[in-house]
Amino acid sequence: MTFTRFDRYVDRHARNFSERLQALCRMPSVAARGTGMAAMAETVEQMMQRVGMGTRAFRMGNGYPIFYGECGAGSQSYVVYGHYDVQPVGHLSEWSVGPFAATIVDGKLYARGAANSKGDLAARLAAVEAYQKTFGKLPVTLRFFVEGEDGLGSTSLYRFAAENPEMLTAQGCIWDEGYKDTKERPVISLGFKGIQFLELRAHGARADLHSKWGAIVPNPAWRLVQALATITSPKGVITIDGFSSNIAPVSDEDQEALKAIELDEAGLKREFHIGGWVRSMKGAALVKEHIFGPTCTICGIRTGHTEAGAKTVLPSAAMARLDFRLVPDLTPELVTKLLRAHLDVRGFKDIDIIELGSASLAKSSPSSAVARAVIGSAAEVYGVAPLVYPMDPSSGPVGAVCGASSPPTPVASFGISYAGSNPHGPDENIRVDDFLQSIKFIGRVIHKLGETKTKTSGITKVSGIREARTTISRG
Amino acid sequence: MTFTRFDRYVDRHARNFSERLQALCRMPSVAARGTGMAAMAETVEQMMQRVGMGTRAFRMGNGYPIFYGECGAGSQSYVVYGHYDVQPVGHLSEWSVGPFAATIVDGKLYARGAANSKGDLAARLAAVEAYQKTFGKLPVTLRFFVEGEDGLGSTSLYRFAAENPEMLTAQGCIWDEGYKDTKERPVISLGFKGIQFLELRAHGARADLHSKWGAIVPNPAWRLVQALATITSPKGVITIDGFSSNIAPVSDEDQEALKAIELDEAGLKREFHIGGWVRSMKGAALVKEHIFGPTCTICGIRTGHTEAGAKTVLPSAAMARLDFRLVPDLTPELVTKLLRAHLDVRGFKDIDIIELGSASLAKSSPSSAVARAVIGSAAEVYGVAPLVYPMDPSSGPVGAVCGASSPPTPVASFGISYAGSNPHGPDENIRVDDFLQSIKFIGRVIHKLGETKTKTSGITKVSGIREARTTISRG
Repeated sequence: MTFTRFDRYVDRHARNFSERLQALCRMPSVAARGTGMAAMAETVEQMMQRVGMGTRAFRMGNGYPIFYGECGAGSQSYVVYGHYDVQPVGHLSEWSVGPFAATIVDGKLYARGAANSKGDLAARLAAVEAYQKTFGKLPVTLRFFVEGEDGLGSTSLYRFAAENPEMLTAQGCIWDEGYKDTKERPVISLGFKGIQFLELRAHGARADLHSKWGAIVPNPAWRLVQALATITSPKGVITIDGFSSNIAPVSDEDQEALKAIELDEAGLKREFHIGGWVRSMKGAALVKEHIFGPTCTICGIRTGHTEAGAKTVLPSAAMARLDFRLVPDLTPELVTKLLRAHLDVRGFKDIDIIELGSASLAKSSPSSAVARAVIGSAAEVYGVAPLVYPMDPSSGPVGAVCGASSPPTPVASFGISYAGSNPHGPDENIRVDDFLQSIKFIGRVIHKLGETKTKTSGITKVSGIREARTTISRG
Repeated sequence: MTFTRFDRYVDRHARNFSERLQALCRMPSVAARGTGMAAMAETVEQMMQRVGMGTRAFRMGNGYPIFYGECGAGSQSYVVYGHYDVQPVGHLSEWSVGPFAATIVDGKLYARGAANSKGDLAARLAAVEAYQKTFGKLPVTLRFFVEGEDGLGSTSLYRFAAENPEMLTAQGCIWDEGYKDTKERPVISLGFKGIQFLELRAHGARADLHSKWGAIVPNPAWRLVQALATITSPKGVITIDGFSSNIAPVSDEDQEALKAIELDEAGLKREFHIGGWVRSMKGAALVKEHIFGPTCTICGIRTGHTEAGAKTVLPSAAMARLDFRLVPDLTPELVTKLLRAHLDVRGFKDIDIIELGSASLAKSSPSSAVARAVIGSAAEVYGVAPLVYPMDPSSGPVGAVCGASSPPTPVASFGISYAGSNPHGPDENIRVDDFLQSIKFIGRVIHKLGETKTKTSGITKVSGIREARTTISRG
């Protein structure tokens, strides 16, 4: 089967697709500000319904609704992730155009949210439409989940995933992070690190004391520092008992994939204003550590008095936040268990560990159906070999979504933006041609997924999904 | 010479002295609020002039004036410290009487500032008056320094001491901290620990980064933690190279003095809500550590994000504030020097040390003139042996005042309050009888100082002190 008709459909409707995206981009759906969210939610649901999806809205507590919609046929199903909220605008004075004017200049559409990631959502829905119009029914079932809290930490989606794992069970998952790099290579990620976010707390007297008591009253700040110092070495290696022995070796196929990846070391050092990298690493070793190294980052410490003024106190409490990024085969639960045992055996039983949040890692083998469909389609549409990250060093709800079932759902992630998109800064923009090319790309991905023979076990059909749409209102 | 006439003068003027103190206590001179300070300053200066002092007001920058006044004669001179500001009132609802009504109930004068320390200032000036009326000229020169920023960290006094060391050179110094304990023993301190207050800073990227960079970008929070962990042992012993070898052994006379001192361990543990003391110490070892142990207290640490919300960042900077309390022979300069060398030799040259403030320790031998006069007079007036602390574990401007010259000026500190005075809390009060007894006590101290033969070298006469009073206004 050729894609001539499909591509022609996209070309013929290019203006229409672009205008629909512009309309989306004109809605100031900044979740952090609570602006324009209701109108945007309504529009998203209508767009999903337009391609024949029955939709259902899930609202967790006071959160913004997550829209769910299914289309296609067949026992194989794939989760497609999207979000309809955008980042705050930042300083208006730094924008060349209005952030919600959705102005197109020299083939670039400027708007907050164009790159992250209304363009991706619009392209995916456009591809479904084009596929239906040219090939008929989709050969696989796509299950769209479109949330409204990307900018708020995806609280509702985490909760939804924990409460509805059966709805997320699928043969694969398509995420929306990705871009064309400075060499115009599409960047595809086949995984994301997991995360375990912990708080450690040490306790002292019931209130901050005059520090004249420092010689005899236990100081929780010292207690915390001494405990923390056992968790990593001065060189930054994680030294928790049993931690490194639970890390799987990097597979041969991942080692192979790493060879294609380079970090712009000089450029990043300039950008970050740093003199060097951890343990003076560079080259291939640095890339491997970035992508397959676990982390234990102190994200914050708070204790005592640190404001202006020379206030000498003996603090009553001390806390540190630790963010562990997890690589195979580390799990959030294992990290907490190992850390607890590590501290206990060193006499730090008095230090509390509080779990603030977690997400499993999500990772596909390059030979998984979703990875093959995405990598294969990219080469076909873009004419260059994509840059394939075996794992992205970030993490997020992708881990909760893909990790809802066991074994985890394979994931492939890509997006419509390019190296100049500036997705969290001023003048966020995408190239309209990239957007249209992505529609063609996604059409091929859908098609390739349909050609894949996979087993159908473990799939739960969601009942009642074709019911009348649920009306959601936000107060 | 007997004190019969002196005591009779005090008794005859008891009402007058008390009423003068009440008048002082009715002025709401809360430096932290800026209320009533100008009126109080004027009154203090008038009271000093009433006993024949020429006064001079020193105003450092925008600070509240420090009043200086001299009285008496002879080449021997003693610094007398006082302050005219009071602590904030706190919650009015917790007071039984108005905090500035200066009500006397059952022999107790209730007022914010009565115990800390308008009562002391009034008693000292009353003793000068009674001495002059009964004996004539004072046998020694008393140099009163009365500041208005006790509640603000004595910023002006520190600066004054640094800029005018010659004015503070004296045979001895009388401070105003002290009280009668629960057994009605007057508590006298013959010293105060020094202090060196430092900030340590570690630097990373130019801004907080996404913590996905945690595997390869140096984290200043870890850097700081690892550096701090070398400064003390997990058991709380200071492990800075060369630190402990610079600590003088506790002298035999101080060891002897320690025997009389007890800590109410059970009561303090209840008050602080702690289960035990550092290194499970108790009894005599605990007392010795409290009084003669140096400290290195983490007063605060700040780095990264510690507010509500799961924000995972790799911090750009980290800082810790360390408060060292110094015992003989540690000096602020030595502490900084040793810490710098200790960090450097361990590869922490990148960590900055910033000096936030310091004060030398102040300590008298029990055989110094001022210590003998105070201890001897106490036994005479109070009929019980005083409880003599060889050193108080707190520190402050006393170190700056007594350390302005070299060798440091011997200090003895005592006050009019009692165990129930609650000087920083609601219902602050003193017993009027304690106030009157203190006047008699101070009269004897002055007299004993006059009997002491000390060398006169190192004394600089302040010129121009009998000039017309300097007019100070506060905007």
